[in-house]
Amino acid sequence: MAELWTISESSFNPERIRHNETVFTQGNGYLGTRGAFEEFYPDEQRATFVHGVFDDLPVVFTELVNFPDWLEVEIFLDGERFSLADGEILAFERHLDLHTGLLTRTVRWRSPQGRTTWLEFQRFASLANVHLACLQVILTPENYSGGVELRSGLDAGADNLGFKHWDWLGQGFDGQTCWLKLRTHTTEIEAGMATSIAVTADEDIETHVWDVHGHPTLAFNTQVSVGHDVRLEKKASIFTGRDCADPLASARAELAHLPEHAWDELWQAHTRCWKEEWQRCDVLIEGDDEAQLAIRFNLYHLLIAAPRSEERVSIGAKTLSGYGYRGHAFWDTEIFMLPFFTYTRPEIARNLLSYRFHNLPGARDKATTNGFSGAQYPWESAGDGREVTPTWVPNPSDRANMIRIWTGDIEIHISADIVYAVWQYWLVSQDDEFLINRGAEIILETARFWASRLEWNNENRRYELTDVIGPDEYHDHVDNNAYTNHLARWHLRKAHWLGGWLKEQNPQAARQLFNRLGLVEETFSHWQQVADHIYCPLDVETGLIEQFDGYFKRKDVDLAALEPRTESVQNLLGIESANDTQVLKQPDVVMLMYLLPEEIDPAVAQKNYDYYTARTDLTYGSSLGPSIQAIMATRLGSPEQAYENFMRAARADLEDVRGNAGDGIHGASAGGLWQTVVFGFGGLQVNVDGWKLAPKLPKHWKRLAFKFAWRGEEVSIDLGGKEGENT
Amino acid sequence: MAELWTISESSFNPERIRHNETVFTQGNGYLGTRGAFEEFYPDEQRATFVHGVFDDLPVVFTELVNFPDWLEVEIFLDGERFSLADGEILAFERHLDLHTGLLTRTVRWRSPQGRTTWLEFQRFASLANVHLACLQVILTPENYSGGVELRSGLDAGADNLGFKHWDWLGQGFDGQTCWLKLRTHTTEIEAGMATSIAVTADEDIETHVWDVHGHPTLAFNTQVSVGHDVRLEKKASIFTGRDCADPLASARAELAHLPEHAWDELWQAHTRCWKEEWQRCDVLIEGDDEAQLAIRFNLYHLLIAAPRSEERVSIGAKTLSGYGYRGHAFWDTEIFMLPFFTYTRPEIARNLLSYRFHNLPGARDKATTNGFSGAQYPWESAGDGREVTPTWVPNPSDRANMIRIWTGDIEIHISADIVYAVWQYWLVSQDDEFLINRGAEIILETARFWASRLEWNNENRRYELTDVIGPDEYHDHVDNNAYTNHLARWHLRKAHWLGGWLKEQNPQAARQLFNRLGLVEETFSHWQQVADHIYCPLDVETGLIEQFDGYFKRKDVDLAALEPRTESVQNLLGIESANDTQVLKQPDVVMLMYLLPEEIDPAVAQKNYDYYTARTDLTYGSSLGPSIQAIMATRLGSPEQAYENFMRAARADLEDVRGNAGDGIHGASAGGLWQTVVFGFGGLQVNVDGWKLAPKLPKHWKRLAFKFAWRGEEVSIDLGGKEGENT
Repeated sequence: MAELWTISESSFNPERIRHNETVFTQGNGYLGTRGAFEEFYPDEQRATFVHGVFDDLPVVFTELVNFPDWLEVEIFLDGERFSLADGEILAFERHLDLHTGLLTRTVRWRSPQGRTTWLEFQRFASLANVHLACLQVILTPENYSGGVELRSGLDAGADNLGFKHWDWLGQGFDGQTCWLKLRTHTTEIEAGMATSIAVTADEDIETHVWDVHGHPTLAFNTQVSVGHDVRLEKKASIFTGRDCADPLASARAELAHLPEHAWDELWQAHTRCWKEEWQRCDVLIEGDDEAQLAIRFNLYHLLIAAPRSEERVSIGAKTLSGYGYRGHAFWDTEIFMLPFFTYTRPEIARNLLSYRFHNLPGARDKATTNGFSGAQYPWESAGDGREVTPTWVPNPSDRANMIRIWTGDIEIHISADIVYAVWQYWLVSQDDEFLINRGAEIILETARFWASRLEWNNENRRYELTDVIGPDEYHDHVDNNAYTNHLARWHLRKAHWLGGWLKEQNPQAARQLFNRLGLVEETFSHWQQVADHIYCPLDVETGLIEQFDGYFKRKDVDLAALEPRTESVQNLLGIESANDTQVLKQPDVVMLMYLLPEEIDPAVAQKNYDYYTARTDLTYGSSLGPSIQAIMATRLGSPEQAYENFMRAARADLEDVRGNAGDGIHGASAGGLWQTVVFGFGGLQVNVDGWKLAPKLPKHWKRLAFKFAWRGEEVSIDLGGKEGENT
Repeated sequence: MAELWTISESSFNPERIRHNETVFTQGNGYLGTRGAFEEFYPDEQRATFVHGVFDDLPVVFTELVNFPDWLEVEIFLDGERFSLADGEILAFERHLDLHTGLLTRTVRWRSPQGRTTWLEFQRFASLANVHLACLQVILTPENYSGGVELRSGLDAGADNLGFKHWDWLGQGFDGQTCWLKLRTHTTEIEAGMATSIAVTADEDIETHVWDVHGHPTLAFNTQVSVGHDVRLEKKASIFTGRDCADPLASARAELAHLPEHAWDELWQAHTRCWKEEWQRCDVLIEGDDEAQLAIRFNLYHLLIAAPRSEERVSIGAKTLSGYGYRGHAFWDTEIFMLPFFTYTRPEIARNLLSYRFHNLPGARDKATTNGFSGAQYPWESAGDGREVTPTWVPNPSDRANMIRIWTGDIEIHISADIVYAVWQYWLVSQDDEFLINRGAEIILETARFWASRLEWNNENRRYELTDVIGPDEYHDHVDNNAYTNHLARWHLRKAHWLGGWLKEQNPQAARQLFNRLGLVEETFSHWQQVADHIYCPLDVETGLIEQFDGYFKRKDVDLAALEPRTESVQNLLGIESANDTQVLKQPDVVMLMYLLPEEIDPAVAQKNYDYYTARTDLTYGSSLGPSIQAIMATRLGSPEQAYENFMRAARADLEDVRGNAGDGIHGASAGGLWQTVVFGFGGLQVNVDGWKLAPKLPKHWKRLAFKFAWRGEEVSIDLGGKEGENT
């Protein structure tokens, strides 16, 4: 059913303009373009981002650069400028076809002077050729005949929320193509953009070349009569110095070989690609239309952000769909988004993990700067893998006291998270070549970091990790966060195992790598020893794992007593007060139980699930929480809890439940949603020996079908459908 | 002689492009435009600032907004774009006529393809109508005939070093006029700009209207033959919501009533105004051409930055000529620049002091926030008089450790400096009306600040001011800075005196004011008592005034031993180490002796001059130092020291002696230069009883003539000229 593939709105809501720009973002894994209107609208945040094109700025250090807008089309109807901010909107519809990535908008608009026009806009970012994007506008006067003027070009003045990153290098025209040559100001990445515009109408068309500095534009004038159409087709091409030697020449060449009207041809190629995408990863849910549409919507956003041909970029926390976190990548990528790719598009997972491999130098720098060995991955990572977490941000209520952000200093679990993702990728793909040539170096260098970072407590004869932040960021500067300590232990043990495996698999490669990294036999046995002495306590009486030293002594707050609320517990109580309570921003011990189920006894898991669930801010805490909570609820809690949290994740962006979807898609929530369906309801579990299924579908679901690639072979799972019963 | 009125360069030096943009800045007290090239040049910093139009940004809080550029003219000569970055420059001259503010550039340029053209550019910012600016371009092909295209418009994409402050509200054309309607993003100041362009040539001219979004442009095409001219005249008009209700309508109307070719008419009116300006304030120096030109250059820059019709703006430390200090005003205005206006243009001095009166609310806020009474003026002040000194700036060498700027917190002497300027203005002008209605409130409210800020030291039975920064910013967090303590004492005593004077002059106004401010009889006597107990020590044995508690215990560095050097002592030693020495960034005790000579015994003054002069970084310390040092050297040191420091100030911007003239004119140095000539060499001294002269001209000076207004009457001083001898 088409509606289960389509995100729609049937009226124009100016209040939701930024939220909808995020929802209707299009992309192809190379670029992402927010769902702004072709003709501009006040207070919009139109943006096109290209993976890997970062530039410096104050406070947040670096950000994805907004490219000159390829959407821009200004429309003058018998002299009146078309704008949804003026006149009257008699009809408005917008549809995003998730199956093809096509965005369609239909507007019936009455101008201030009473001219009524039908306008249809369509656009897509080609998946067949990621350097191409295409749009068309068809307009039809309903009650007048007169002149129509259409203007479109490329504006070098593109900025990021007011900050300009582009230096102009040149511009020009090739017939009905105009082009721009630009360079990012600090990082000096060159970009070439070109756009070709063709207009068709019944009457003659006059074309004007407006070679205005910084904004080359084509203007088209024609006459149109009642009921007749004017159609504009615009193709845009983008290349950067990260792709090729001469990005401008590439951009111009790309358009030069296309016919004037290429929509149909480009569209065919594009939809063929999308069809293949969905064949590999669609998830079918029957009996729950909202869930069906939501899972596709979230997978769509992962797919349009996924680098297919590049291994030096990652996916930012807000994908390529908004300014939130400025395109920086966190553990969100490896722990939340990556499983979807590992299981359905391993070549994309490999690209994303290779980004971490290529950025080992930045991680080594961070370790060295902090006085540690090996490689310490940055909490926030951008173009070159240096740490780019803001350190100080302005305090809006006190100009003299900036707010210190500590995550870049002490939220150290990310190095183990990345290794966990490498391990999972290898487990599922058995891509030995990757593990030997790239994954191993990631695992071993970060193991060296842990070995140097762990602190020997001589009194208690154990290794500790003090002054850290765990996944639950309501609590900072804590000692012995269970999640971090367990992951570090797991990591060192895997590194030890890897040493043996490498020597067995490929002795020569192992020797070379160990020599290069300065690893000897004793290093590996030392790691094993260290791992065995990492402090990972369990209270045998209560069966509880204390989230960090002294957590149980903090104030126990009855979350239910705070209801109804519309903001996070941290906002409600203040940063310091929230820190003093037991309330969690997101699962922490429960997250540990999710990632390392083999380390926790089921009875212990149940006790901890119950204890911590009651204390987790799942409504307004982290958007990373609900999906994990849903999976663990499937295993340890109630079906109601599972479904409630699943829907929380499902609605994160579609319903803007946290009020910040305008900043971009919650990529981790999108990836977590897939994990909830497949690992939670689908009950898929894997280990070195293979995979198994223990499904627990929500009661009202009639069918759940999904696919995954297991070591090179596609596996189709179909649960509860006509063909079979829910096992 | 014309050359003593003209700043010239005779070749193009790309290395000095930003420095020369500052030097060749034009303005009219409403707007300032840097000396960028009409046709653009890579890495330029073209900018037009309008007084009072500030907008917010990170780190530095607020800045003067760069307006859409009225200079922009792109020139295509038979298809080749004219640019000094391409082709060959066969001849290049630039002249700024200080007497009329006319900037002329002549270029003989050979294009890459060998076409040689003479181009002449002239422009001025009208002083007769400050909302108007005008430029013309005349080009003459030398060895070819062919097509010429000229393009010019208004670019809403104007940014401040990459940061955009403008929101686009609209644009359009009236015949050969194009216009823009804009609004600053945060402060929501509306601006209207319009520009009219007329081209004359032998052949027919084709005019194109390029209504490109954000950059309306007119393009002109014609044919020209060898030796014939094409001339473009461009007039621009700027209004803002600070000037009028409908700035766009005003800007359009301004141009609508002008003829197509208005250069001559506008030029006549403009030069008449400039003639009047110079008649009131020119300084004549014979026997020293460099000094003659330099004093005029510096007065020119004060004149073009001086608000003539506005009393809610001040002059920033870098005037309207660059991005340095973002247009913020410091004590530089009142103590360094203001005397020139007080003595030659009292109505401008009154405007500038009224800015402080209108901004009392911001100063009251600052006092309240800091826990004090009355009004505490901000160290850096911008649009609305709130404190806008940056508090934290990025540390380029350590991302986690920002640098704290303390001047906004503890450089408190500015409140007394402003009152000193009020007092001086009244002394010279006898503008009782101002003192009663505006000056009094400034003086009394800031006196209340001092009374609450001063700390009673019960053990020593005295008032102290601990944890301050004096004029010498190499030393921060010091106790009992002599300059600050003396000025506070002087200030409280003047406030006490003012109480009596007001009651005598205008009992009714006095009563109303005292009631409104909550001042009673006891307040004034308390102030007098407090003043008498402020700690202002003098070592009777050595005759030295210690700059602050413990200064003499700091390391004594032999400045001569650090020569030759090309950077400040602070840069050389580091911030902390410089703080540990006795080296000064600029005169501090000597500054005190300059401002309050009546408080210091001449023998004491001599000893302190000798001691502190040897320890002051006059070459690369503050640009505020040399002029004051020159004056005090005239009084207490040697004529050689006086002249050396005078020339240091004279060359600050012309020769870019500190390497940062590209950031804008050193306004304090410019104002200090005038003081050196008049108060130093001219030896003018004033007090309540009148003025007297004790000139000490540099030996090689043949004549020094200047004027000032003494209580409504113009006084002409002519020293050492043909008519008389140096007294």
